[in-house]
Amino acid sequence: MKNLTEGNITEAVIEAIKGTKDPRAKEVMSSLIRHLHAFVKDVRLTQAEWEAAIEYLYDTGQITGPTRNEFVLTSDTLGISSLVDIINSNPDGGTEASVLGPFYIEGSKMVEIGANLIGDSEGEPTVVSGTVRTLGGDPIEGAIIDLWQTAANGLYENQDPDQPENNLRFRMRTNKDGYYQFTTIKPVSYKVPTDGPVGRMLDLQGRHAWRPSHLHYKVSADGHRNLITEVFDEGDEYIEEDSVFGVRQSLTVPYNLVTSEEEAEKYGVASPFHRVEFDFELETL
Amino acid sequence: MKNLTEGNITEAVIEAIKGTKDPRAKEVMSSLIRHLHAFVKDVRLTQAEWEAAIEYLYDTGQITGPTRNEFVLTSDTLGISSLVDIINSNPDGGTEASVLGPFYIEGSKMVEIGANLIGDSEGEPTVVSGTVRTLGGDPIEGAIIDLWQTAANGLYENQDPDQPENNLRFRMRTNKDGYYQFTTIKPVSYKVPTDGPVGRMLDLQGRHAWRPSHLHYKVSADGHRNLITEVFDEGDEYIEEDSVFGVRQSLTVPYNLVTSEEEAEKYGVASPFHRVEFDFELETL
Repeated sequence: MKNLTEGNITEAVIEAIKGTKDPRAKEVMSSLIRHLHAFVKDVRLTQAEWEAAIEYLYDTGQITGPTRNEFVLTSDTLGISSLVDIINSNPDGGTEASVLGPFYIEGSKMVEIGANLIGDSEGEPTVVSGTVRTLGGDPIEGAIIDLWQTAANGLYENQDPDQPENNLRFRMRTNKDGYYQFTTIKPVSYKVPTDGPVGRMLDLQGRHAWRPSHLHYKVSADGHRNLITEVFDEGDEYIEEDSVFGVRQSLTVPYNLVTSEEEAEKYGVASPFHRVEFDFELETL
Repeated sequence: MKNLTEGNITEAVIEAIKGTKDPRAKEVMSSLIRHLHAFVKDVRLTQAEWEAAIEYLYDTGQITGPTRNEFVLTSDTLGISSLVDIINSNPDGGTEASVLGPFYIEGSKMVEIGANLIGDSEGEPTVVSGTVRTLGGDPIEGAIIDLWQTAANGLYENQDPDQPENNLRFRMRTNKDGYYQFTTIKPVSYKVPTDGPVGRMLDLQGRHAWRPSHLHYKVSADGHRNLITEVFDEGDEYIEEDSVFGVRQSLTVPYNLVTSEEEAEKYGVASPFHRVEFDFELETL
């Protein structure tokens, strides 16, 4: 007769999954069981606290659907998504990855190098350029830069019915020098959604929900590993305390103010404007 | 500039929640963060595995609602619910607790001592009796025994539209000797629901979904700690491998077969029938 106790229940659960055929699934599940059990034992979790945890998951499930994933936001705000990004970043160098977040949409419109996204958008004009290269420094022609960013109200196009479709998001192919360039408005810092369980958790933890201003990118090229990353304004007031822990030093850049009318004319923007430069390095597969 | 790395991100998240006002919430959240991060690092979780975890939570949220909680079933089948039960069981002795499970309903009908629940139910007639006592052995008068169990088809009344309301569930007050007694059918072993994410997880883990036969009880009395527990048939084929880890040796009893016509007449049942005896001990508050 198996008599389950605090001392043997963890091994009993591991024993119960010994028939897991996939060795990696067995390893991952065993470790998850060990860590969750160790957590319960370490804090001597009470029944009321267990019920609160179940209620959190229940509420998170209720608010989650095809257009909003509060489980992802939970993972983001507990630093788990970023930890996974860090662990899976190129061991051999190259641009660091950062969180995908919930606002990416596949299939944004294709535009030409030099495109101006401003349209009717309010905000500070910004010219962004750089190259996509291999780790060895060779330019990658035809790499696809896929960008999405907030408007001046802190919302992405797919959060905001007042923005036109494809507003402040696009895809662009690099030229033979691996070069990309576009004109946009400076993204603003914004809050992750706080009207759900994550908002209540942040309140309980005495934290704010702000993310520093960033340009969000997916960069891909044949024969190279896809890169999802963010390029941050190093001067943003939340740069030290991103609510989802996405910032890496290597991903922060200055927004240099340019007052020259001649430069403004060259890029077809009003003066003054910001200049941002960032080079991506992709791992070869 | 904070540069998040695998080496410092866990402490950065702990630092971010330093403003948590409730000291216990701070302790629990900090431990949860440490253990979840340690899990991710220990197994070097891949992006694809993180996505699979998010998908599991998403699907679990979608199937969960007021009448079905797949998060509870996840906790049950990973042994977490039982671990919480064990940790919070009476340190001073008394009857051990076991999982509440998803099939309890408040407010079952009140019946008198000796009630016969069989009605039109198929199954093996069983007479169950015992006492409710303090840890010191004093009988508790007026304790409420709240029972729920499966019918012969392995379903609880609230899972099965073909069963009448309150079928095989009731509440009963103990008499001045702390005594309770009722006649029912022997509960059968049954599977936890396998048509959701938990079913897919059990498949992946090469496990079955069976639970051994049990009588499920909530026992309460003024001035005493509520007890939720299960009393198992020690001869059940799944007694060693309950899919939700609810079995404790102290909660297993024999179903003794009685063939005496005289005894059968005494309890108003057909011969042969089973006799089950179990005494509950409640902690005084």
